Amino acid sequence: MQKITASYTDFYQLTMAQVYFLNQNHEDQSVFDYFFRKLPFHSGYAIFSGLEVLIDILEDFKFTPEELQFLEKQGFHKDFINYLSDFQFNGEIKSVQEGDLIFPTRPVLQVKATIIEAQIIETLVLNILNFQTLIATKASRIRLAAPHDTLIDFGMRRAQATGAYYASRAAYIGGFDATSNVKAATDFGIPVSGTMAHAFIQSYENELDAFRDFAEVHPDNCVLLIDTYDTLRSGLPNAIKIAKELEAKGHKLKAIRLDSGDLSYLSKRCRKMLDQEGLSYVKIAASNQLDEHVIKSLKDQNASIDVYGVGTNLVIGNPDAALDGVYKLAFADGKPRIKLSENVAKSTLPSEKQVYRIRNQKNEMLGADIITQVDETNIEKMHHPFDLTKSTTYHSHILEPLLKTVMKDGKRYEKKKSLAKIKAYAAERLNELPEEYKRFSNPHIYKIGVSTELLETREKLRETLKK
Amino acid sequence: MQKITASYTDFYQLTMAQVYFLNQNHEDQSVFDYFFRKLPFHSGYAIFSGLEVLIDILEDFKFTPEELQFLEKQGFHKDFINYLSDFQFNGEIKSVQEGDLIFPTRPVLQVKATIIEAQIIETLVLNILNFQTLIATKASRIRLAAPHDTLIDFGMRRAQATGAYYASRAAYIGGFDATSNVKAATDFGIPVSGTMAHAFIQSYENELDAFRDFAEVHPDNCVLLIDTYDTLRSGLPNAIKIAKELEAKGHKLKAIRLDSGDLSYLSKRCRKMLDQEGLSYVKIAASNQLDEHVIKSLKDQNASIDVYGVGTNLVIGNPDAALDGVYKLAFADGKPRIKLSENVAKSTLPSEKQVYRIRNQKNEMLGADIITQVDETNIEKMHHPFDLTKSTTYHSHILEPLLKTVMKDGKRYEKKKSLAKIKAYAAERLNELPEEYKRFSNPHIYKIGVSTELLETREKLRETLKK
Repeated sequence: MQKITASYTDFYQLTMAQVYFLNQNHEDQSVFDYFFRKLPFHSGYAIFSGLEVLIDILEDFKFTPEELQFLEKQGFHKDFINYLSDFQFNGEIKSVQEGDLIFPTRPVLQVKATIIEAQIIETLVLNILNFQTLIATKASRIRLAAPHDTLIDFGMRRAQATGAYYASRAAYIGGFDATSNVKAATDFGIPVSGTMAHAFIQSYENELDAFRDFAEVHPDNCVLLIDTYDTLRSGLPNAIKIAKELEAKGHKLKAIRLDSGDLSYLSKRCRKMLDQEGLSYVKIAASNQLDEHVIKSLKDQNASIDVYGVGTNLVIGNPDAALDGVYKLAFADGKPRIKLSENVAKSTLPSEKQVYRIRNQKNEMLGADIITQVDETNIEKMHHPFDLTKSTTYHSHILEPLLKTVMKDGKRYEKKKSLAKIKAYAAERLNELPEEYKRFSNPHIYKIGVSTELLETREKLRETLKK
Repeated sequence: MQKITASYTDFYQLTMAQVYFLNQNHEDQSVFDYFFRKLPFHSGYAIFSGLEVLIDILEDFKFTPEELQFLEKQGFHKDFINYLSDFQFNGEIKSVQEGDLIFPTRPVLQVKATIIEAQIIETLVLNILNFQTLIATKASRIRLAAPHDTLIDFGMRRAQATGAYYASRAAYIGGFDATSNVKAATDFGIPVSGTMAHAFIQSYENELDAFRDFAEVHPDNCVLLIDTYDTLRSGLPNAIKIAKELEAKGHKLKAIRLDSGDLSYLSKRCRKMLDQEGLSYVKIAASNQLDEHVIKSLKDQNASIDVYGVGTNLVIGNPDAALDGVYKLAFADGKPRIKLSENVAKSTLPSEKQVYRIRNQKNEMLGADIITQVDETNIEKMHHPFDLTKSTTYHSHILEPLLKTVMKDGKRYEKKKSLAKIKAYAAERLNELPEEYKRFSNPHIYKIGVSTELLETREKLRETLKK
């Protein structure tokens, strides 16, 4: 939809960058890790999303003349502004594939670039990946609640303005079938969906005329909103009339939609009345403050709903509304780096790394990912990242490497993945994950470990720094 | 930053629009109200924001050829696509001024246009106004918690992708002083702010060298982040060293920044040590999961903080994360319209309307806005909008009309207001609001009433519709 340029960044990236530049150490090689610390929604997993968008933007991430002018006015050095005028990202990115399952603490994406480039792109990386991962994860939970029903994203009106665009993309990856957002549908190739609002019906003298006009124009894609005046005494009988009129002309009413009232009770009443009229093919759609918990409860009550429209709670990622992803320096100027913290769980992991998913000989997930230094072999022992007394040994396991090159020399490394492929991959990976990690209450905790070598590197660094 | 085109809409706007168009009633005049039902954050008021952005977009809200092509593929009628290719908004908008106080139930903005135009712009109106109003309100609450300190928006990395852009704008209107978001600063003219991240310090062999290099490049705008290794034993002493080195060269260290640990305790310890070293001019900045409640608590503890950096909780509008603004038909084809609801508080108000703020003869706010039909005179009685037994009479009051023409024939009606002016207006209007509406716990409820005429119109319509 929009051109995101290089001033899409936090100001401190540029104040730091100027120091690197004027001190001539801006071309020092660095490695930064993108990872998050806490799963949103008390979920047992997250779905990685946003990668292809990030790569698209990074391939052409430049400052415009207006932006450079603005920076000049902020007092930046002429030589630095000059450097920025030629700025582009030339680095390498390794990443988990978009749509894969990701878990706290372990690197999801790794940027290997000159420190000035890696720093200037930080905000973009966080801004794009945090949000889409949040929403893909939320969408996937809603999908878990309604595995076989149609899910449509209705959230545009309540999203963070243009953030809606990316919410719709991430929702599709996470398991939604369609969106109401025309712009996102156009650009991303997401199926688009929507029929009528209350205002349409209110603009007519009576509901039946409104339904009839709509059915005439959209005879094969007719979903009638039946709660404008009185769901069971007006909306439904009128919809049944229209259904019969459509039948007489060789068409079929697609669905009715409920947008208020007790969705469980009303959907069952509607289903019964539709069936009695021989309209069992007419589907029932529902919307109104839905989320995974409400949908699960509706399913538990055997509500007769075939299509769920989910808005606000999806696109804002309610109740968390943000993923706490961070971007931390792991390597600079030839040396591994960490950040200490009084809270040990907030310490970072040094060095360029690899992450492996541990599988048994049948290639089944064992519920653990292990973080290692990039070139390690002989990985058998896995340590708790923060509790040094805990470790596990894996025998005759398969290690699936998760971080793969996705950008090299500032260019996309492999062919761009279609959204459909990413969505299918997300479903496939989630399908592999045992049930206990997917339940909504207290899901089983997926294990994240670090290799012995990596642990030792960190502990040595920690001791040096404490001195 | 971006061109928002007419496909920035929900798909159902177009399926409805096609029906209006093919039935040739698309040019019926209509009036739609934008309003919200529930104040966010348990706040006693909201700050209206987003208007000038909305007008900018609406002045040039057109479908691109690619978008029309996409719609053609969705099966829309050729004549309708043809209509859309010439689509533009030609209507009139009346609105509360951006930055004004707004309250539930009463119209904030009113669109008067052909029904097809009013419908196609609905999603845009909601998407732009809901979010910015949410964030301006959140920002204003944070400002209330720290009336005299510097507030900086740090939220870009945790926002809904490009939504960050509008969050920064709204935060400024609501009372923030600056943003870290370079793009928003460039385009909107917001003061920009930021200095260094932990990564900068980690990339050096030791903290002091990092500080020194930074101070050399930014001698007059040097804020040192002191919690990378050990706040009191390393960060602060090193910052003090740098402050003295800067002094020797005729400069002054601007501030130190705390980003972890107990901000109350640490800020007081830092203040004391700085003062003992004759560095009382060095300010203390703090960040880390701040919001109005944390800041209020820090102030209550006499924390020594001069600058607050607020990120996530600001830009996501935590905990609500969405404003429930809606856009409802009030008038169509020459007649007033309402939507009934089993929940009476969800019924809408018919007709083109005006809203007045009631003031006494000294021109002070009386804590009430009254909604009337647009051309009413003789407004003395104010009824509760939903409880018909309640009414109040106002004598010798002043009625300040709040809805003013901001677009006419699809064009901006008056000169565009600068962001600085909007911000000043927001502060001025909030300043007028008595304290009891601004407290964080159970604020006094601002009264919203409807005139006798408007009430009678609604009740008549309700009876007709019930038949």
